[in-house]
Amino acid sequence: MSESGTPQARSVRLRALDGEHADERDDLVACEEPLEIQLGPAALAVVMRTPGHDEELALGFLVTERVVTSPSDILSIRHCSTSVTPEAEDNIVRVILAPDVEVDLAALRRNLYASSSCGICGKATIENALATAPPLGDDTTVFAASSIRTFVARLGEGQDVFRTTGGLHAAALFDKSGRLLVIREDVGRHNATDKTIGWAAARGLVPLAGHALMVSGRASYEIVQKALAARIPLVAAVSAPTSLAIELADASGITLVGFLRGETMNVYTHAQRVVA
Amino acid sequence: MSESGTPQARSVRLRALDGEHADERDDLVACEEPLEIQLGPAALAVVMRTPGHDEELALGFLVTERVVTSPSDILSIRHCSTSVTPEAEDNIVRVILAPDVEVDLAALRRNLYASSSCGICGKATIENALATAPPLGDDTTVFAASSIRTFVARLGEGQDVFRTTGGLHAAALFDKSGRLLVIREDVGRHNATDKTIGWAAARGLVPLAGHALMVSGRASYEIVQKALAARIPLVAAVSAPTSLAIELADASGITLVGFLRGETMNVYTHAQRVVA
Repeated sequence: MSESGTPQARSVRLRALDGEHADERDDLVACEEPLEIQLGPAALAVVMRTPGHDEELALGFLVTERVVTSPSDILSIRHCSTSVTPEAEDNIVRVILAPDVEVDLAALRRNLYASSSCGICGKATIENALATAPPLGDDTTVFAASSIRTFVARLGEGQDVFRTTGGLHAAALFDKSGRLLVIREDVGRHNATDKTIGWAAARGLVPLAGHALMVSGRASYEIVQKALAARIPLVAAVSAPTSLAIELADASGITLVGFLRGETMNVYTHAQRVVA
Repeated sequence: MSESGTPQARSVRLRALDGEHADERDDLVACEEPLEIQLGPAALAVVMRTPGHDEELALGFLVTERVVTSPSDILSIRHCSTSVTPEAEDNIVRVILAPDVEVDLAALRRNLYASSSCGICGKATIENALATAPPLGDDTTVFAASSIRTFVARLGEGQDVFRTTGGLHAAALFDKSGRLLVIREDVGRHNATDKTIGWAAARGLVPLAGHALMVSGRASYEIVQKALAARIPLVAAVSAPTSLAIELADASGITLVGFLRGETMNVYTHAQRVVA
């Protein structure tokens, strides 16, 4: 999978005010552009993302939204353009499925809309998530608390574009010994998550049993749902989780860590997986 | 419009680790639940939101996604339930349009997917936004820099649920003299924005010429697009804007302020609207 040459940050001119003092200067901002994911010739979804690692994003999206049941269902993922839209070249990736693979587009619609035929509520949303990706069951992986405490600093070290723009979220995968596998940045936290999972899927590492996902900022329902689809047993966030993220983690057997900062962390679910 | 009684935060049990010390305790987390917005009997969209101010959220969503061209197109917005899904009562709002009002559901789909028949790129995305909501044109409102500098502190004072959970975004509307009109919190920054604009629409204040929108965190394309639909001439964010947010603000005549902290701010577009 080739990388797009599109930059992740670009320079803009701005007026900086400091009290009564005004100054014109240049600064870097994080790039945001639409990416259309095509399944064969048809548009499957458009996501607003930071350019770069687009094939990983598409692959991760297909895996975490359960459009495919296994990365081996996919024959190829490539940037493409059409003669009528040459300027869109960097913003379209086309997915070709292996012969005889069928996809469940109704499931994608259910996931994207968090809707359900049996009622609109947190309980139904979680039942729907578990219907497409069952609970982790007997996953007995444990992580040392001392190892988890190092995740934040290593996430920060890898946030190259955030350092220059202040405008990107990040996600990273660690193995159970605390080794950093991959870190990805994006304007969307869900995209950064999909990029890391897509990176792993391209290397045959999905299902990600025995691994941890770390995200900058908060942990929402959507992040835990993506971790569940990739079979990740521990999700850690720098900031707060939402109620539904906790409920899904609890029901699916995922350990959810929040407010991971310095020496402290809160373990909201399945705390047996965090050992001294 | 009645308010739902659903709480915005709830208590959870967690294990707090501090170095080698572990402690079981209760803490508050921000609530996240799906809300289905129905147009007549049909589902229009499902958003993951923090319960509360749901009618404002639905009204703001319809206005900022240009499903309706004016709040007067709407006859009523109410929570509803069906006999088969009593538990979903707090999570469905039904919108009844005035007679003879037609909605452009294709435009909604275009907005939600940021897609375009003329190509997938930043330029086409902005052209599409401007086709449904034209540039502000000759809006000559100005805001005193000293007034804008007070927005952050007042946003913080109003973030009641954030203070207890650390888990919510916020948005607020100010008038041109710097008076705070409304502040709303939500797990989604776009929902918080829709709730403030829905509050204003319910009071006949949309179009919001002469007003400013302030959001916690970052300013993405989506936030500027919503401000444009509500005709808000100034958008300010605590943190960084994205490239596409700047491009849309530039093209549509909106003043975009980022990194609004203490005495400092960056003005990315239409700086003439910020005066000493």
